Amino acid sequence: MKDLLVFNNEVFRTYAFHVVLLVFKMLLMSLMTAFQRMKKKVFVSPEDTSFMGGILKYDDADVERVRRAHLNDLENIPAFLITGLIFVLINPNETLALQLFRLYTLCRYLHTIVYVVIVIRQPARTLMFFGGLLVNITMGVMIAMKVYE
Amino acid sequence: MKDLLVFNNEVFRTYAFHVVLLVFKMLLMSLMTAFQRMKKKVFVSPEDTSFMGGILKYDDADVERVRRAHLNDLENIPAFLITGLIFVLINPNETLALQLFRLYTLCRYLHTIVYVVIVIRQPARTLMFFGGLLVNITMGVMIAMKVYE
Amino acid sequence: MKDLLVFNNEVFRTYAFHVVLLVFKMLLMSLMTAFQRMKKKVFVSPEDTSFMGGILKYDDADVERVRRAHLNDLENIPAFLITGLIFVLINPNETLALQLFRLYTLCRYLHTIVYVVIVIRQPARTLMFFGGLLVNITMGVMIAMKVYE
Repeated sequence: MKDLLVFNNEVFRTYAFHVVLLVFKMLLMSLMTAFQRMKKKVFVSPEDTSFMGGILKYDDADVERVRRAHLNDLENIPAFLITGLIFVLINPNETLALQLFRLYTLCRYLHTIVYVVIVIRQPARTLMFFGGLLVNITMGVMIAMKVYE
Repeated sequence: MKDLLVFNNEVFRTYAFHVVLLVFKMLLMSLMTAFQRMKKKVFVSPEDTSFMGGILKYDDADVERVRRAHLNDLENIPAFLITGLIFVLINPNETLALQLFRLYTLCRYLHTIVYVVIVIRQPARTLMFFGGLLVNITMGVMIAMKVYE
Repeated sequence: MKDLLVFNNEVFRTYAFHVVLLVFKMLLMSLMTAFQRMKKKVFVSPEDTSFMGGILKYDDADVERVRRAHLNDLENIPAFLITGLIFVLINPNETLALQLFRLYTLCRYLHTIVYVVIVIRQPARTLMFFGGLLVNITMGVMIAMKVYE
């Protein structure tokens, strides 16, 4: 039985790299939210306005847009991270695995770009969401097939 | 030292299957939210109303109910996924592990059913929440015991 | 190749213990929200007021404060849990790894304390947030370096 969670397994090494890309992306969303709040001077805790000035406001459209993009990440990326790890452990075809990881990361980055950075008309965002979903479903189905083989 | 993260370890194989069941459940919640928004024609981004028609509305009761159920998943399921993986690595009693995984998944599915699909009076939802919590706490305590043995 | 995901690897054992500390912390936030709702008698689902009395209210300041602290956990802790696992697999320097895990957990606990338990003026909360972020970035960069070594 070969060891799979090692860095000379190309599938695991690529997975590990995409974990970093996706985790950094999620953490960046927190900073983008904070940046929007400071730029627009709208905060949600009194200790923030005491420190930074500005006003308490719960529904600023620009801040909420970043927060929705962030929440969409939280709904999807942790699912990918753990499913991806189990997927590495089924020892999948290397080419397929690498393409799935790349497609997922690409879709998630583009999802945020069309949602927050340059708002592009729908269904751009929905397509990126479904691209990511497709990867998660493909990996999930392949894991289930391995369980029942 | 036997290898634990392999598919001929019954505990890991069952864990992997429940990862799929729970990840698919979480992804389904995104689709249920989108479905409710389209059915009730209420959206939160202007590019969505431009594409789909309907109105911008942030507090539709049916949409918010699905979103709360989804958020409750996000608060609990990722914790299970990672705790469950570490739990597999303590090489627990097989029967206990399988029953914990099954109980967890059952509680989370029923939690959503009584919250969103057929709203049943409380404390139905709270009991399902505590069922899931009990599994996470049991696994956590057993991991801590292994750390200090 | 030595096995890394085993309890006689001090780095993994410490990681596993911090997983428990952080998962229990996240689960505690759910209970703190429920406790605040019951104490202030404000709920968001009609079946809750039917069961517990009180009123439907969506913007109670004390409840929302706990929820924001919880959401901040959800934005950060799952990222740590999976990044930490991959970090264990790069077989890092033991002293560094243990200090990173301890710093992370300390920052996250203090983040909640200064946000919810005893509200301390800013930038206390922001500093705790950046302490946690620093750990996640350090681990991420070290993983990326391992990928490309």
